[in-house]
Order: sequence, then structure tokens, then C-alpha cells
Amino acid sequence: MALRHIALFRWSEGVTPAQIARVEEALGRLPGLIPALDGYSFGRDLGIGPDTYDFAVVADVADEDAFAAYRDHPEHQAALGVIRPLLADRASMQFRAD
Amino acid sequence: MALRHIALFRWSEGVTPAQIARVEEALGRLPGLIPALDGYSFGRDLGIGPDTYDFAVVADVADEDAFAAYRDHPEHQAALGVIRPLLADRASMQFRAD
Repeated sequence: MALRHIALFRWSEGVTPAQIARVEEALGRLPGLIPALDGYSFGRDLGIGPDTYDFAVVADVADEDAFAAYRDHPEHQAALGVIRPLLADRASMQFRAD
Repeated sequence: MALRHIALFRWSEGVTPAQIARVEEALGRLPGLIPALDGYSFGRDLGIGPDTYDFAVVADVADEDAFAAYRDHPEHQAALGVIRPLLADRASMQFRAD
């Protein structure tokens, strides 16, 4: 059983498409830099549901140790440095998935 | 590019493990009943992160039509009938994922 980490973001008012593009660029580098990542997907809300968040990240790792390795990796922390100033709200969870 | 739907739940105070087990039973039937589902994972929060939600569902489908087929399927609606009375909060999003 692998571990799946989910984070949903809601951007603050005034966050621009260019700022979101920088988030995507920062996240897009991580699979090549963090060996603990077995799978990684992220993207902007498609606007087809009610009351949705604005952006999602799904990280698949082997176990809790691999999750900690991802979470604490300097490149992930650098990406969080891009994301955090833009956040109005964040929802997250970790669960076991096949 | 496929579509990934994410829903995070926070249970109301007093929701019991038996009630959550009924949610898991209802969701576990859906991949066998809803052809639009290409992938489906769900589970309880592992308690390893701060301020997490309690339960997650990730549904992978081909496109927006397949998402609508899943969302509106009577068996999914029946599962929502089990889930909704237990919810204190819900966070969701749909995005394009490889």
C-alpha cells in the first residue's frame, strides 16, 4: 500500500496567471529532483464543479518515510516558498492508496 | 490528458468508525459499477500532517463527460446519500492530469 498526499490551494485575491505559472514551473521540476516521488500530478481547477479550490497537488510515495523525504526536501521547500505567499486557504490529507 | 477529481471530507463531531466503514463500503462498490471510472482511491487520514481533513476520494476519468457520468450515476448518488449526513466540511477540485 502506497501513500497518497493531497493538497488543495485557494489563491488570495489578486493572484495573477503569471504567478500561478511560476507555481507550476516550480512544481514541475520536483519529480526530476526528488527520488521519493513515485507519482506527481498538479493543476488548475477546471471550473466544472461548485465551490471548488483553485489548484491541486497529488503526490504518490511509498510510505511515511518517503513522504517525509518529499515534504522536507529543499527543492520542495523552495516550491512552498513560491506558493505560500499566494495562499488564502489550503486543504490537505494523506491516506493509503493502492 | 485525463481528468482527476478530488474530494476531501471533514466529518461532523460524533461520527463513528462504523459510519466511516459504511462510507468505505459504499465507495468500494463504485469501481465495479461505474464504467466511467478509470481509477479510484479513497481512505482515512493517516494523522501525519497538521490540520488535515479526515477522508479523501480521488477519481480518475477520461474527460468532462466521463466525470459527469460518474457524478450523476445513481450508485454514486446513493454513496453521497451515505456521506452527506456525516459531513462538517468538504473541499473539492477537478484538474487535468496525465
